[in-house]
Amino acid sequence: MKLYEIGAPNPRRVRIFLSEKNADIECSTVDVMAGENRSADFLAKNSLGLLPVLELDDGTCIAESVAICRFLEAQYPEPPLLGVGPLQQAIVEMWNRRVELGLFRSTADYFQHTIPFFKERIVQIPAYAETAKASARNHLDWLNGALADRKFLAGDDYTIADITAQVALDLGTPSVFAVEPRHEHLSRWFAEVSARPSASVLGKS
Amino acid sequence: MKLYEIGAPNPRRVRIFLSEKNADIECSTVDVMAGENRSADFLAKNSLGLLPVLELDDGTCIAESVAICRFLEAQYPEPPLLGVGPLQQAIVEMWNRRVELGLFRSTADYFQHTIPFFKERIVQIPAYAETAKASARNHLDWLNGALADRKFLAGDDYTIADITAQVALDLGTPSVFAVEPRHEHLSRWFAEVSARPSASVLGKS
Repeated sequence: MKLYEIGAPNPRRVRIFLSEKNADIECSTVDVMAGENRSADFLAKNSLGLLPVLELDDGTCIAESVAICRFLEAQYPEPPLLGVGPLQQAIVEMWNRRVELGLFRSTADYFQHTIPFFKERIVQIPAYAETAKASARNHLDWLNGALADRKFLAGDDYTIADITAQVALDLGTPSVFAVEPRHEHLSRWFAEVSARPSASVLGKS
Repeated sequence: MKLYEIGAPNPRRVRIFLSEKNADIECSTVDVMAGENRSADFLAKNSLGLLPVLELDDGTCIAESVAICRFLEAQYPEPPLLGVGPLQQAIVEMWNRRVELGLFRSTADYFQHTIPFFKERIVQIPAYAETAKASARNHLDWLNGALADRKFLAGDDYTIADITAQVALDLGTPSVFAVEPRHEHLSRWFAEVSARPSASVLGKS
């Protein structure tokens, strides 16, 4: 197995997932600045040109971070990060999606519509960046409330939902939002996940 | 079990999923126009106020369409719609996410930034709606290519990825895009999924 990656939030989700499993697989950096992800070789691995991609030994490629994590969960079952049993698996998926489609997406949208890297890649709309920032801040408040009555997002155990939220917080701080004293539960949780050894992989942005 | 829904794309994904399983569960419409989804009762079921929500007999609630489908897959295993075995499950999830985060999201974004219903709910940005429309059209072309060498999106079998794409196509036609004669593979696939009995549930928008 080989993981194609870049130093970016989505590959970082997979690297934290692997670190929590104590799984060591080959990783290869793709030079996006040089357009390597748009080469014929890479497009044969992922026709959307996006990263990360997991290539299996027989050449089969899996794209999309969460799909990769689902495959890795079966290869490295311990500790479970996608829940155990149908109900808990659904609850973990619910929390992961709430964070991914809310805080993570809004934070990423803000950067896509403001930073130079994306200037020639998408139509940047400053007004949209501002709504994305406002949305991310609202989701941060919501996340604080969600953590009021439990240790981790989906319950007593650390899961992929915590990884997605953690990566979003690292990405958005301080350009998009700040965890403030009023975010009492979020602060407690963020300090805890940030102290895990897995938090140091692949930088923080 | 009880499914809270409205006549909208995400609830429709779950209803098609249930129809393919020949599963008949209680469904209850939430009056979003009257703000019922922002009531304390409903927010206790889903703190984000979004639909659909699956309520279990013990009161446990699962939000997020794909999380609901994952739970339902375990309750009604036949026919499998999320893949069988770790690799196929990852491949199905990859295709579902590619479509959901691409065509489905862009199409939904176009409507959120143009139709009156969302005028008082979000900051509508016409320039962003136009980029969303352009993105949806690009994804439609990509989807046509993806279907060139296989019967369904994830391979030989109809899966949740086909449901997501089908709902996006019904939603976007004709305001956002049209399936054109040059979309040879997409046309063949769309005719086939649209002819399934499940296609008629919960309207087409």
